Amino acid sequence: MSLHPHHDGSALYVPEQEPALGQTVPVFVRVPDGTDVRQVHVRTTGDGEPRFVEATVDRRDGHDVWWRADVEVRNPVSNYRFMLTGTTGYRWLNAAGQVDHDVPDHGDFKLVSHAPPPAWARDALIYQIFPDRFARSAAADGRTPPDWAIPCDWDTPVIGRGPETPRQFYGGDLDGITERLDHLDRLGVNTVYLTPIFPARSNHRYDAASFDTVDPLLGGDAALVRLADAVRARGWRLLGDITSNHTGDAHEWFTRALADVRAPERELYYFDGDGSGCGYESWNGVRSLPKLNWGSAELRHRFATAADSLLRRWLRPPYGLDGWRVDVANMTGRRGADAYTHEVAKLLREVVAQTRADGLLLAEHGHDHTGDLDSDGWHGTMNYVGFTDPIWSWLRHEGASPRPGGSSRDVGPSRPGGSSRVAGLPRDGDEPVPNFLGTPGGVRRRDAHAVLATMNSFRSLISWRSYTHSWQLLGSHDSARIRTVVGDAARQEVAAGLLATMPGTPVVFAGDELGLTGGNGEGSRTPMPWHRPERWDAGTFAAYRALLALRRDTPALRHGGLRWVHADADTLVFLREATTGTALVLARRAAAPPVRLVGLAAGENIYGGAAALRPDADGAVTLPGDGPTFQVWHF
Amino acid sequence: MSLHPHHDGSALYVPEQEPALGQTVPVFVRVPDGTDVRQVHVRTTGDGEPRFVEATVDRRDGHDVWWRADVEVRNPVSNYRFMLTGTTGYRWLNAAGQVDHDVPDHGDFKLVSHAPPPAWARDALIYQIFPDRFARSAAADGRTPPDWAIPCDWDTPVIGRGPETPRQFYGGDLDGITERLDHLDRLGVNTVYLTPIFPARSNHRYDAASFDTVDPLLGGDAALVRLADAVRARGWRLLGDITSNHTGDAHEWFTRALADVRAPERELYYFDGDGSGCGYESWNGVRSLPKLNWGSAELRHRFATAADSLLRRWLRPPYGLDGWRVDVANMTGRRGADAYTHEVAKLLREVVAQTRADGLLLAEHGHDHTGDLDSDGWHGTMNYVGFTDPIWSWLRHEGASPRPGGSSRDVGPSRPGGSSRVAGLPRDGDEPVPNFLGTPGGVRRRDAHAVLATMNSFRSLISWRSYTHSWQLLGSHDSARIRTVVGDAARQEVAAGLLATMPGTPVVFAGDELGLTGGNGEGSRTPMPWHRPERWDAGTFAAYRALLALRRDTPALRHGGLRWVHADADTLVFLREATTGTALVLARRAAAPPVRLVGLAAGENIYGGAAALRPDADGAVTLPGDGPTFQVWHF
Repeated sequence: MSLHPHHDGSALYVPEQEPALGQTVPVFVRVPDGTDVRQVHVRTTGDGEPRFVEATVDRRDGHDVWWRADVEVRNPVSNYRFMLTGTTGYRWLNAAGQVDHDVPDHGDFKLVSHAPPPAWARDALIYQIFPDRFARSAAADGRTPPDWAIPCDWDTPVIGRGPETPRQFYGGDLDGITERLDHLDRLGVNTVYLTPIFPARSNHRYDAASFDTVDPLLGGDAALVRLADAVRARGWRLLGDITSNHTGDAHEWFTRALADVRAPERELYYFDGDGSGCGYESWNGVRSLPKLNWGSAELRHRFATAADSLLRRWLRPPYGLDGWRVDVANMTGRRGADAYTHEVAKLLREVVAQTRADGLLLAEHGHDHTGDLDSDGWHGTMNYVGFTDPIWSWLRHEGASPRPGGSSRDVGPSRPGGSSRVAGLPRDGDEPVPNFLGTPGGVRRRDAHAVLATMNSFRSLISWRSYTHSWQLLGSHDSARIRTVVGDAARQEVAAGLLATMPGTPVVFAGDELGLTGGNGEGSRTPMPWHRPERWDAGTFAAYRALLALRRDTPALRHGGLRWVHADADTLVFLREATTGTALVLARRAAAPPVRLVGLAAGENIYGGAAALRPDADGAVTLPGDGPTFQVWHF
Repeated sequence: MSLHPHHDGSALYVPEQEPALGQTVPVFVRVPDGTDVRQVHVRTTGDGEPRFVEATVDRRDGHDVWWRADVEVRNPVSNYRFMLTGTTGYRWLNAAGQVDHDVPDHGDFKLVSHAPPPAWARDALIYQIFPDRFARSAAADGRTPPDWAIPCDWDTPVIGRGPETPRQFYGGDLDGITERLDHLDRLGVNTVYLTPIFPARSNHRYDAASFDTVDPLLGGDAALVRLADAVRARGWRLLGDITSNHTGDAHEWFTRALADVRAPERELYYFDGDGSGCGYESWNGVRSLPKLNWGSAELRHRFATAADSLLRRWLRPPYGLDGWRVDVANMTGRRGADAYTHEVAKLLREVVAQTRADGLLLAEHGHDHTGDLDSDGWHGTMNYVGFTDPIWSWLRHEGASPRPGGSSRDVGPSRPGGSSRVAGLPRDGDEPVPNFLGTPGGVRRRDAHAVLATMNSFRSLISWRSYTHSWQLLGSHDSARIRTVVGDAARQEVAAGLLATMPGTPVVFAGDELGLTGGNGEGSRTPMPWHRPERWDAGTFAAYRALLALRRDTPALRHGGLRWVHADADTLVFLREATTGTALVLARRAAAPPVRLVGLAAGENIYGGAAALRPDADGAVTLPGDGPTFQVWHF
């Protein structure tokens, strides 16, 4: 096969990565030799009106002609697309690809003039830790478990569903994490993301009882200082997790609000009727998670704008979190006719930026996030729909699920969801692999074409900046583990390979690198088997380590563009292109016919062990056909 | 071919057409027998969280199974889609059709709980009049042409491009229109839409010098009262045209603003720099059209909210306009970082509704309008991109353009656009048919598949309500005329057939029904040849008359759903389905193989003269293969 005209938002095509409002910037489109393109225009719709500007040939380079056009950054988000005119008419090139009929603007490329995310985020390699399950320090033995807890020995099996799920208390703490940072260093990450650390009445702590202190069960404020210092000492970053959609019903704000209809905290929540009743809106109907009302000026003050707001306090010394992951950002500010989501995102970002210029603000979003990005709010999102879900669909095992059990967003009585949202599951052959999106029937196995179409459709709706700054995950504390989804180490390596080589910020959920299993979000909150080295999958750890190192050492994998060049049912092939060189990535879930590609240079293998690529007499290189495999070449 | 599962927003599938916020309403999906569907869910994302509800079989009806599910109108615009599960997995059914991979929510069906458009608009058949060119009353002879005008005899050829274009003054007036309403009655329309009637310094009057009086050259306020009375006496409606994006530079607001930096009118516009300079923002750089600044509270007051605002005044007796078409709504409120468009749309709608509950507010939008609808603002838009442009592409003639000349949005010196926006036109064979969107190369001929894909992609992004209340045009005062685009009467009949049978409000640009020609927007502003009956194409008039009558007499064509059942390069076939019956529409631009359709009842021909449809032994009906043709059957 041969290559197609290409543009994306990377520096190769958009040299000005931080355009200012009003600036005119060049954009480039690469047209392979032999393509029927005689004229190129760029179309913009600044201030709501279409305009066309003709592109000119900038240079010839190897097998390509590079056209250049100038785009005015007329609006904070300025969209553009290319019109490629050949002998048989024109087609559009937008972020979704080439199309031969007229289409709406949503798939246009986007230049964003809002302030960029912090520079460090571009190269972050994140390790997600669920504190109760990561590691216990010696101090943990001296603590008395709280009244709600079911104390568990580190070897106790995790109960993935039922009333005991949120109460199983393993006693991991922050000093435990601090003591284990060498493990993260061996793995090769550089950023630690902690799920909530505030006092609560569950092991997951998404039901905050306060935002003012670190849970004493985790070691309290001093333990956070020790952890933050240790992380900083390694040159790493540390991220917290904040619940903007709700608090716990034991939160001091809520108990005051419930006790007194005249309390200033009353307006922070949604009380039923005229606001004087005892009923209240809560997260998916779960009474222990009363929903916050962002129409409240008092909430905006306490949460964000006050000088000592919770959002600010933990970003400052001596804690110095480098930013926040925002829980349930998808629902935050949304309730009936209330639609404060974008306002809240913008407000939180302003406050984070005021507090520390290099602070990150990353939104949880479990389904279509595309409408919530690029608005000067969230820097990015957890890209479940545009990465996790399609990769799962492509690589999922073909047999029965090790732990069937419905939606893994169902987090037990204190944070359920799935079962109330799913009325009836289909029965057709496979046992379902639970899908954290709650889709009835779980994760369906799909071929690469469908998976690529899904990835492209979500990617094409947001800016390159938002795409590359979104988190790429193979799973989290809210989902099954990748090993359980794909079923074996070979396909997990393919998954980890995509995690490490595609655009977006790789996030490793602690334990995935050891090949741990887990059938749903709660079941995957497995204690790290520090004292059971026989449970470690050393091969998987080595693969993760090598893949993260590959990303670190290969600028094109961190900052390059993304050009898909081949997909068959079992195969995905793409290029990451940068001025520093190009990486060619081959991912196969199974053996498939070799792939011949025209128009590429010779390349050395840098991951996977296949032979170097050498163009044949026709100028084509051939990618090997075995699988499952993950291979990377560089040229 | 056989039929596919189907849902749309029409009453057959959504019985509650005016759902209230918080209401739960049933929605139905029709699944033809033999389709691999064993289970149906409906997916919603109320308050930002996906939920699935299982559908149940409601009934069997002929060849179909009807499934029913309940959807909560949780938000003002509540999206939903169906999950159809069969033996080989699931696919989604959303407004874009069926898809076998996961997709973003933008193509979901939408329930809108905002107040609906006025009931009369649903059955409107609109006739667009450009007053200077429609008809002169005797009184016109007594008026002195203004200083800017080049007086023209009614037979003078229209100059479509150049400095004289906006100055050619033919002297049509409102009493001329009043005298000719019988023509409209014979044609069969029921709503008159007038392009601007305020004093100005051009024949098009989009450069308003005042909003306080009707232009004396048109007969002044009293002539509008006479016209409005005559229109009302026939039970019809009358719509005006308001410029919300700009005024003329002769407008009293602007002259005061320009003369005095301290004038209260200063803030109504965008003056350069710190606001104290003489430079100002104008429509596409045309100095005679200074842009209004909707950040100004004073503008909002004068334009809309004041008790005697221009928006209100003309909706009230004795004028009693039934609503406004809003000029350049696509740019209104947009300028750099200013993004007031949705606020302005909502404000104008509120004020219109306060002033008259049955007032219509319809937005001009020449390109992708989908982001500006469904927000409790515009009731609909001019659907150039989702109807005009694709129909033109499909039906355009294959030879040279009768009047080549670039973009017809270029309206001469007083309102240009095209040439400044288009840098370079491709040269490849055909002379271009000018495209009012300014696309270089003009209108490309495309096959029905591409055209249908374009229509679907725009339709799928807005609610059924916004789609059906948008204006369907074959052309306007801003475009070439349909006859010039398609080249002959036979294909114009196909175009008019689609105009009269597809969802959306048909709009006829005065003169199209006579087969008048015009190569661009200005060239198409042809005086009506009242005194030259030899120039009338009687066959075209008869076709328009019969097609509008067909729509009036066939409820399914006005209120039915839309189900596409076939497309080949030269053929489009669709159903309009309602409880009152079903219309089957065949449109052909050329002869093509007959089309066999399974699963339809016997049907009588109600337009076009083909034989009745009778299912054969296999239960299939065969649509004839000749063309160009336009045929409608009913069953």
